[in-house]
Amino acid sequence: MNRNIELKQDECIDDLQLNELKIIQNNKAFKFGMDAVLLSSFVTVKKNSNVLDLGTGTGILPILLCGKTRTRHIMALEIQSDMVDMAKRSCQLNELEDRITIIQGDLTKSNDYIQQQSIDTVISNPPYKKRGSGLVSESDTKAIARNEIACTLENVVSAAHNALKVGGNFAMVHRPERMADIIATLRGYQLEPKRIQLVYPTIKQPPTLVLVESIKGGNPFVKWEAPLIVRDENGEYTETLKKMYGIEEE
Amino acid sequence: MNRNIELKQDECIDDLQLNELKIIQNNKAFKFGMDAVLLSSFVTVKKNSNVLDLGTGTGILPILLCGKTRTRHIMALEIQSDMVDMAKRSCQLNELEDRITIIQGDLTKSNDYIQQQSIDTVISNPPYKKRGSGLVSESDTKAIARNEIACTLENVVSAAHNALKVGGNFAMVHRPERMADIIATLRGYQLEPKRIQLVYPTIKQPPTLVLVESIKGGNPFVKWEAPLIVRDENGEYTETLKKMYGIEEE
Repeated sequence: MNRNIELKQDECIDDLQLNELKIIQNNKAFKFGMDAVLLSSFVTVKKNSNVLDLGTGTGILPILLCGKTRTRHIMALEIQSDMVDMAKRSCQLNELEDRITIIQGDLTKSNDYIQQQSIDTVISNPPYKKRGSGLVSESDTKAIARNEIACTLENVVSAAHNALKVGGNFAMVHRPERMADIIATLRGYQLEPKRIQLVYPTIKQPPTLVLVESIKGGNPFVKWEAPLIVRDENGEYTETLKKMYGIEEE
Repeated sequence: MNRNIELKQDECIDDLQLNELKIIQNNKAFKFGMDAVLLSSFVTVKKNSNVLDLGTGTGILPILLCGKTRTRHIMALEIQSDMVDMAKRSCQLNELEDRITIIQGDLTKSNDYIQQQSIDTVISNPPYKKRGSGLVSESDTKAIARNEIACTLENVVSAAHNALKVGGNFAMVHRPERMADIIATLRGYQLEPKRIQLVYPTIKQPPTLVLVESIKGGNPFVKWEAPLIVRDENGEYTETLKKMYGIEEE
């Protein structure tokens, strides 16, 4: 079903193991990780909903959600032009131009692109590292994807608040070390944390990722999910992880 | 080593499986649970430190900490006179009157009993349930231990803030459902959450308890502990739990 899409230098097409979906990635740029896959499985997306992805990168989240949910339309904002170009070609490759719109733009000015209170579900896999917490090159696309150079946690949360309808949900993946910042910032923008899941590499280690879903205008009460354990005691992926990655059981 | 201590109706002496320590409990009143044992293992208590327990109940936390740590002195505040009476007799029973002082008092007026900024470590196993979240009898000692009747989460956090030295730590056990309230309230009183551990009944279930240690005036960054799993797939206590409870390995 895939059309003939031009690939640029260092680019390759990866199979997502989900409804024959594929994605274009650049071997020298930021590539999607487990966090995006976990977030696409965690977020609650209702049928016929309008979704917004803040900082979409390669477009991995919108493409996965088209495979996993019955969302009507996904808008995806990305600041870096080369990533936008790749994400657009991935949408063409999957014939998803009708369901996904990639917009080049700065999420700190999201009101320029997204009508306020128009979105049912916002998702984001934002940069994790706090500004000033390490030496980074500001021109590096990997650095921009990983560090709070182009946007901070508060910028992302503020953009989610602006775009969401009251009662709409915002799902984010982030580092557990930032938990207090995450919860305080969400609350500061009337986004009440309602569902949280921690991701542990193994049962014996501290968590390395946290998935948080908040509701605009929700009441305080957090529903926790069972722990998401990545590998069992033998170093093998757990059944939960295999399902998310579309790995066939033996 | 135990002296002859008078027991009242419905009271019994339970062995804590730790340095021959014992505790008096009343079979018809609130008895300590796993949360107190977990908190006593979780909290960081330095040698020669002054500790304060807010809402001590039977005095379980001070007694366990005398067995597990080298704290100099523990003050323990409790509002209910019958619990205070029991806790005092448990201190006598264990010959710990020199290390533990049980004070009958209302923690919402903690400045009347505790000098401000005099304490190194505050601990609390407070009532978990939010006021108004269920019908309770306000005269019931169990209800007062479990519901925010005599004090709210904010009362406890405020009392901890007042008593603690800058740089001192406050460790609390609570319900994960209250996580957003807990973090927001701690931050509101300059108590930065620095260390968190979730307690899961089994690896396949959501967490039922959360242990949080915050530092007065600390910087934002949370260190997470490995998950604390209570029972394994066979329904047996895990090795971690057995150690905390002093259960001998077979």
